Amino acid sequence: MKKVIFKGDILFTSNKDKFETHKDSYLVTEDGKIVGVFERLDDKYKDYTMMDFSGKLIIPGFVDIHLHAPQYMNMGLGMDKELIPWLNTYTFPEEARFEDLDYAKGVFKRLINDLIRHGTTSVAIYSSVHKDTTKLLMDMFIESKLRAYVGKVNMDRNAQPELMEDTEKSLMDTEEIIVEYKDKSPLVKPIITPRFVPTCTEELMRGLGELALKYDVPVQSHLNENVGEVQWVAQLHPQLSNYSRVYDNFNLFGQTKTIMAHCIYNKDEEIELMAERGVYAAHCADSNFNLSSGIMPVRKYLDRGIKVGLGSDISGGHSLSIPRAIVASIQASKMKWLESNRQLKPISCSEAFYMATKGGGSFFGRVGSFEEGYEADLLVIDDSNISPVERLTLEERIEKFLYVGDDRNIVERYVAGEKIEFLE
Amino acid sequence: MKKVIFKGDILFTSNKDKFETHKDSYLVTEDGKIVGVFERLDDKYKDYTMMDFSGKLIIPGFVDIHLHAPQYMNMGLGMDKELIPWLNTYTFPEEARFEDLDYAKGVFKRLINDLIRHGTTSVAIYSSVHKDTTKLLMDMFIESKLRAYVGKVNMDRNAQPELMEDTEKSLMDTEEIIVEYKDKSPLVKPIITPRFVPTCTEELMRGLGELALKYDVPVQSHLNENVGEVQWVAQLHPQLSNYSRVYDNFNLFGQTKTIMAHCIYNKDEEIELMAERGVYAAHCADSNFNLSSGIMPVRKYLDRGIKVGLGSDISGGHSLSIPRAIVASIQASKMKWLESNRQLKPISCSEAFYMATKGGGSFFGRVGSFEEGYEADLLVIDDSNISPVERLTLEERIEKFLYVGDDRNIVERYVAGEKIEFLE
Repeated sequence: MKKVIFKGDILFTSNKDKFETHKDSYLVTEDGKIVGVFERLDDKYKDYTMMDFSGKLIIPGFVDIHLHAPQYMNMGLGMDKELIPWLNTYTFPEEARFEDLDYAKGVFKRLINDLIRHGTTSVAIYSSVHKDTTKLLMDMFIESKLRAYVGKVNMDRNAQPELMEDTEKSLMDTEEIIVEYKDKSPLVKPIITPRFVPTCTEELMRGLGELALKYDVPVQSHLNENVGEVQWVAQLHPQLSNYSRVYDNFNLFGQTKTIMAHCIYNKDEEIELMAERGVYAAHCADSNFNLSSGIMPVRKYLDRGIKVGLGSDISGGHSLSIPRAIVASIQASKMKWLESNRQLKPISCSEAFYMATKGGGSFFGRVGSFEEGYEADLLVIDDSNISPVERLTLEERIEKFLYVGDDRNIVERYVAGEKIEFLE
Repeated sequence: MKKVIFKGDILFTSNKDKFETHKDSYLVTEDGKIVGVFERLDDKYKDYTMMDFSGKLIIPGFVDIHLHAPQYMNMGLGMDKELIPWLNTYTFPEEARFEDLDYAKGVFKRLINDLIRHGTTSVAIYSSVHKDTTKLLMDMFIESKLRAYVGKVNMDRNAQPELMEDTEKSLMDTEEIIVEYKDKSPLVKPIITPRFVPTCTEELMRGLGELALKYDVPVQSHLNENVGEVQWVAQLHPQLSNYSRVYDNFNLFGQTKTIMAHCIYNKDEEIELMAERGVYAAHCADSNFNLSSGIMPVRKYLDRGIKVGLGSDISGGHSLSIPRAIVASIQASKMKWLESNRQLKPISCSEAFYMATKGGGSFFGRVGSFEEGYEADLLVIDDSNISPVERLTLEERIEKFLYVGDDRNIVERYVAGEKIEFLE
């Protein structure tokens, strides 16, 4: 058994309303799982390997539950456009390049190293429509030792010709990936990924829902991101009462574990349906700013007990940094508070941190916290250059790291107790 | 005469509506002033010193027209609070420490080096209420060779006891600084800095307005940042029709060159008065998010021809990065666009860049552009690690740098043709 203790200033959120802080304490792990956090070390742990990070922060790794791998090179481009023209001008042409495995490999390596650099240890990520490219991305995630759900995108209508799939082939490719990867790695798994309703025929969505149930594979997609998109879906599916019902109608809405990104314009009945079905919301505040989409009323979702995680949503979002996503989600919630006539209370720092760790992490299992039995996914943060460490509380130090720090403060990363190294 | 040519991919905004781009061109300077930008070099420049930055971006230095030096250590702290409780809990106690010159010196050195790191070459900055501390800050800016307006803060009511000034002494200290520093340096100048109306008696404001006129010294203050603050001012000065009129009544509103920070809740008549008086608005989008203040309708100000610059507003803002302020101002304007029922058009990338360079820069003279006669304040940017340089336009490269780059991409900084080095 691998027995390791991480010593330092330990902080996590087992619930969203407060940080649990343990100054100068011991995080005990066995075989990559958390045993507990102790302020004094019991004798029974005395032969455990001690990793001494005294004075440094030890926190759970960050979880990013919505981003697009083939959009990585487009980060920060075309930000003067709204969703649909931005997709057509920037996103789809770039995604079409990913038929080329060499090009894909170079970009994916940069992306994965950038995720590592920013302290992201778990992702739910979109690949492109290309089967072999998706397998490549999965293999590269396996090599990285990060935790990932990777989805081959499906789209068989309203796409540019280079990205338009044949329905039957789209389903066959998806099934091939599921069969090949569902048990290949404990950390990297397939996820069914209809891009969004406007680009998926009913036949495709029906087939994907069947695959989800047949193999018990999770699902990710987009929901209610933009006013124009919502109207488009209503025109495409006038017989269904809302956008969520379209997915639900095809077993793509919580019949297996599901993430829906954005959820800005959900009707109350859709929020109810998410609660009933246990569907996760991926909140992508920066992307929603950048594409002039709007502000998700996160408070409503939290109050209703819906699971919410954060997404960088590159390249609608322009940064892989989950600390940046935390700040953006707090800032957006403050504007929503004003807009709602001070009804929807802003998100606190601990709530945003929770969404970025245990909130999104629970999609992956026991991930994102330091409670007993959780995966030892953690970051070591040296904040000595940004904080007067001696006169701040741990809550103040984490706030300052999230707002002012950057990847340079993250000195080590671990997933399931394994140290993460950059891909070469 | 000092004759220097900077060769590279040159980009600037002489007006807000578009970037002027000159790929692989020559920025010719004489004695720290711009002669012009040329795509081919005339023979008459052949004996000029050539600084070859081929393949790198050369852009004007960034201008930050609103920030608080003594709040530097508080960046990213207390962000769960609104303006007034945040001032009382975090800001005022920290500012009180600046009576200690040793403490001040350590913080100011970090601040100035951080400004340099982020490519800020001109600032309009608040010191604390302390006279000697303000002189220290001015001397350190002189040493840095950056361009700065530095203001001793004045406050003689509604302040915590440690920061409360005697009115007469506040005016005498201010005048002493003006006399001592108005001609001491070509780059670093005094600016009159009543904190904001609620902390300044009429007697103090009257005296400060007289000093402004007597010495022709500019003014900076805060205006209409927060709903509660606006109501407070109305209660304090019921005889005056709005917040702006209070400053105006005491010759602190454009009688000499003036910057007003925030301007979120200005009434139309106040926007008119700013236009008439030529008062600058400092737009501080991140701070306005963080303190739940609201979103300034920047488009209205631009349409009315008011000069607008950007402010990091640390520590209401949490980053000195002006690229970050550019992104935040664009994001905020997109939310304002939605909120205004699509009436107030979002700020484009070139508009935000203009505000961050020539817009704010014009407060300092011919600063923030590469037109003939402008100061040679410039940055050299190596964006090769973030952009596929060969297939992007210069407009795309600057957008990507602003959104995705950081201080590591800035390789050299110049002010008035002099290379800037970090303070030791």
